[in-house]
Amino acid sequence: MSLPIGPPAARPCYAVIFTSVRTDGDHGHAEAAARILELARQQPGFLGFESARQEIGISVSYWSSLDAIEAWRAHAEHRAAQERARDWYRSFRVRVCRVEREYGF
Amino acid sequence: MSLPIGPPAARPCYAVIFTSVRTDGDHGHAEAAARILELARQQPGFLGFESARQEIGISVSYWSSLDAIEAWRAHAEHRAAQERARDWYRSFRVRVCRVEREYGF
Repeated sequence: MSLPIGPPAARPCYAVIFTSVRTDGDHGHAEAAARILELARQQPGFLGFESARQEIGISVSYWSSLDAIEAWRAHAEHRAAQERARDWYRSFRVRVCRVEREYGF
Repeated sequence: MSLPIGPPAARPCYAVIFTSVRTDGDHGHAEAAARILELARQQPGFLGFESARQEIGISVSYWSSLDAIEAWRAHAEHRAAQERARDWYRSFRVRVCRVEREYGF
């Protein structure tokens, strides 16, 4: 991560909140997650990424448009990873959001 | 949390993504955070809460309207906590979002 917290403010900005509970064991998850993040960074419209895990994991990626999110969702290597979701996650939830306003220090 | 991940899908749904880097030491943060979450749960329009922390912390609260979020932001005890932000956080970012779509298992 190049910034301690999230992307620079951009308008419009969309956030994909990925919330998950892991299965036991790694099942190649760590390597795949690193690869998928590396790929995501290369996609048009990618703005940033934040992640933390305790009992649950929360990862948020930021994008410049819904089209960029859709294109990333349909990316072949990303799709192959999505098909492994049940190996890695007991449950997960994806929420695609439009950032309405933003502040902080 | 009554559910492993987030609130039941509700429409409309808004998410407040609070991303932070802590200062060193607790400074009463743990107690205050627990109290603030307890209060949030009592607010009209509160739908759910998810949180995880490693290098950064990500907390997401879910609400039924922007008005509910604004009323919570203006709540006296919540405001008093907000004034302590610089004791607890080296940096933070708040992003108020509208949830456009949602899926998972």
